[in-house]
Amino acid sequence: MQQPTPLGDMDNESFRRSAHRLVDWIARYLDGGADSYPVLSRVRPGEIQASLPAAAPAHGRPMPEILDDFERLLMPGLTHWNHPGFMAYFNSSASGPGVLAELLTAALNQQAMLWRTSPAATELEAVALGWLRDLLGLPPAFDGVIFDGGSSSNLHALLAARQAAVAEVRTRGLLARGDLPPVRVYCSEHAHSSVDKAAIVLGLGQEALRKIPADDRYRMRTDALAEAIGDDEAAGVLPIAVVATVGTTSSGSIDPVPAVADLCGARRIWLHVDASWAGPAAMLPEEAAIFDGVERADSVVVNPHKWLFTPLDLSAFYCRRMEVLEAALALTPEYLATKEAGAARNLMDTGIALGRRFRALKLWMVMSSFGADGLRARIREHIRLTDGFASQLRADPDFELLAPVSLALVCFRAVPSGCPAGMPAAELDELNAALLERVNAGGEVYLSHTRLGGRYTLRLVVGHLRTSEMHVRSAHELLRRGLDELLEVRSGTWRAPARPSD
Amino acid sequence: MQQPTPLGDMDNESFRRSAHRLVDWIARYLDGGADSYPVLSRVRPGEIQASLPAAAPAHGRPMPEILDDFERLLMPGLTHWNHPGFMAYFNSSASGPGVLAELLTAALNQQAMLWRTSPAATELEAVALGWLRDLLGLPPAFDGVIFDGGSSSNLHALLAARQAAVAEVRTRGLLARGDLPPVRVYCSEHAHSSVDKAAIVLGLGQEALRKIPADDRYRMRTDALAEAIGDDEAAGVLPIAVVATVGTTSSGSIDPVPAVADLCGARRIWLHVDASWAGPAAMLPEEAAIFDGVERADSVVVNPHKWLFTPLDLSAFYCRRMEVLEAALALTPEYLATKEAGAARNLMDTGIALGRRFRALKLWMVMSSFGADGLRARIREHIRLTDGFASQLRADPDFELLAPVSLALVCFRAVPSGCPAGMPAAELDELNAALLERVNAGGEVYLSHTRLGGRYTLRLVVGHLRTSEMHVRSAHELLRRGLDELLEVRSGTWRAPARPSD
Repeated sequence: MQQPTPLGDMDNESFRRSAHRLVDWIARYLDGGADSYPVLSRVRPGEIQASLPAAAPAHGRPMPEILDDFERLLMPGLTHWNHPGFMAYFNSSASGPGVLAELLTAALNQQAMLWRTSPAATELEAVALGWLRDLLGLPPAFDGVIFDGGSSSNLHALLAARQAAVAEVRTRGLLARGDLPPVRVYCSEHAHSSVDKAAIVLGLGQEALRKIPADDRYRMRTDALAEAIGDDEAAGVLPIAVVATVGTTSSGSIDPVPAVADLCGARRIWLHVDASWAGPAAMLPEEAAIFDGVERADSVVVNPHKWLFTPLDLSAFYCRRMEVLEAALALTPEYLATKEAGAARNLMDTGIALGRRFRALKLWMVMSSFGADGLRARIREHIRLTDGFASQLRADPDFELLAPVSLALVCFRAVPSGCPAGMPAAELDELNAALLERVNAGGEVYLSHTRLGGRYTLRLVVGHLRTSEMHVRSAHELLRRGLDELLEVRSGTWRAPARPSD
Repeated sequence: MQQPTPLGDMDNESFRRSAHRLVDWIARYLDGGADSYPVLSRVRPGEIQASLPAAAPAHGRPMPEILDDFERLLMPGLTHWNHPGFMAYFNSSASGPGVLAELLTAALNQQAMLWRTSPAATELEAVALGWLRDLLGLPPAFDGVIFDGGSSSNLHALLAARQAAVAEVRTRGLLARGDLPPVRVYCSEHAHSSVDKAAIVLGLGQEALRKIPADDRYRMRTDALAEAIGDDEAAGVLPIAVVATVGTTSSGSIDPVPAVADLCGARRIWLHVDASWAGPAAMLPEEAAIFDGVERADSVVVNPHKWLFTPLDLSAFYCRRMEVLEAALALTPEYLATKEAGAARNLMDTGIALGRRFRALKLWMVMSSFGADGLRARIREHIRLTDGFASQLRADPDFELLAPVSLALVCFRAVPSGCPAGMPAAELDELNAALLERVNAGGEVYLSHTRLGGRYTLRLVVGHLRTSEMHVRSAHELLRRGLDELLEVRSGTWRAPARPSD
């Protein structure tokens, strides 16, 4: 006989049992369990989807079965971002304190659109962002707000810049404005793709974004920036913002912020600094120089989910002119009007999103658990490990660095010492792409790539809490071995000489 | 002596102990523990912030201490969204299955920007959104993507509409385009405030948004819409989108989508349906009519974090022309190029955000755990409880409904039968505002307000899994008692007659 369909939440005892089971599973996963999986998933496109039913189950299923399905069907489709061998893109750890915070965040389900809908989430956001701001050495004039990611933060920065330059844009928009000159935003050719997306979204268009050439160390050239701004001004174009990057995605290069700030300051152009990845390194006295000039920016973004051990997603957006963002976005329909509106900050006023998770909790728990010295020690260790990897490559005649080592990022490629002189660039690119694929297929590490100066470039980033000397040594060995194998395969065409160490 | 600062993640045994402690705490919280707190926090602005240190701790602190601080310092500042007495705004439950999923999501820290960076998250998103789409009765032509919230979904919808109308906007922007007519977006005067924000962000400006008057049941008047579009076209303005709402925020009213779809279809205007809250009710055969015509929309949003027991944040965006969103947003810098780009979907291509949490996991776990019949039974029960509350008010001579009951939302106010005839509207508004504040101060329930037809209006929404008959009865009793007390206080001015039931 059919049981009546239950109401209410899942049975509490089942919840408790499954939650304890999950905690044990996760504790093992975080304590080395992740390491037994290949970092990069080996499934083929469509395989996961094909393994799952096409329709929702008609009746509810017991949680243990669902968790079994997760392990059996979904685990093979995970690429293990929380694996010490994940050295691709910019990685971070979902640290223990961060995971605990997310568990609590989910259960409490705070929605901090208004102060009154979560005074704790609203005020802890100010507190945690204040702690981080001080550790980064930014002045208290920077007010903070949490967004989901760097793309959002960059979008909000340019939204504020647009508002600062053209106050009526909020009501009148940009279209069919005979009275407005075209506007321009500037960033280096190495700025993050989200700056392009922001220009598109805001209705400026990609053509309104001028990509300034970089120098031979991939830093924005301020002479070219000055020239571009000057040319535009002479042509009646209105410069509204410059995005400088502290730690570009490809090479980790650091734009010359003080010189850019001089240019912007003289012309009252909004200066936004994208330090999404590299920012946390400014906590170290020996690296604090990466933030030189940043104190003069109008806005800055630093992503704790990138290099501060905070699970996705948490981007810290700092702004010295938060009232501009508020002027762009704040609007209060009657159903959101509260008596505290004047006395307390309502976080909905400075963001596109109305609904807001209690993200501050994880930042607070991570910072509290590790402490300022613990955060510094861990970031310092990542930089030390990265230097070690770079030294190994420098000592290896078959590899070359393609950019100065920046913090925890190394850009390099294989250039086999035995390969024919004048080997075509395309063949070298192909060799490196094949090497990357071979190393990643091994499952022990995951590296990614970019292109620098036209050359196919491998990237290794250290950002995981459990990445150790062993992992970076292993990365080098795997690259070596992969290269040897590739050269062997290609020996029909040309062949590297045997090395004594082989 | 100072210990060396530890590296790596927090000690695994400490993690395990704290996680099990948290699980027990959360199991109690979800099993009625939340009910012992006042729903609406009683702290004053600034109180939480003042209770916390102004700087990050220099050294790491033990997790048990941090969790103690959470309970002691932060708990008083929570407004309990996960409380069965939370009947304000639109609430949902962070259900057990959703909380378990979030725990796993945090530990795995998947970032599904590319298929290869999480095949499981990418493909489970398609699967879970497919399940939900079918349950909602939407045709398979609707492709889905998950965003963080309704504001994002509405923004992406209008971004796609802008792209569909003006393809070169991506490159050339909107500014200083002598060749483009002004554009217009239409929505009812009761549409959500995020539609305004989207118009601002996209550079259309608030003036490009025409608010169409509603009928006496707060539904968009299609005659007025047709007239507005006609007038605009005659004036050389380009209509690019209509946003119809299924379940407006104030009153839950449902715009006449079939008639709106006729208007849009004839003119190839993008039709976006905002069903953020009400959408899940379309799963019920007896309520499926709320989605009449929605199958003809270009895009639809339904928020599982609103009425589908999924913790914040998860908004399901469906689009029949996902390629338009992709044409607006897709761009692949070299560091994100992968060989799967043609064979598999990369979720970064259809959204502003590059970083993406594994949100699909919670939707999958919630739907799997409750099953289709379980989801339907729970939504049906909420509607039944709401009807019950409305019946109690109808039977109470001191209250009146201010809008037709819509699904799980009741709009009403106190109109004391003994109050002087011709009582000034402002005084009635003030009385109701005072009543709301008094009831909310009691801590047993939390209701919110809006304004309908100029009248201060109280709103009660049932959306929590543990809200029962007892809670809605209690809400009515608290309103009754609150009103009696207020009338007593005001008896110097005027006084309601004693009622037999008192």
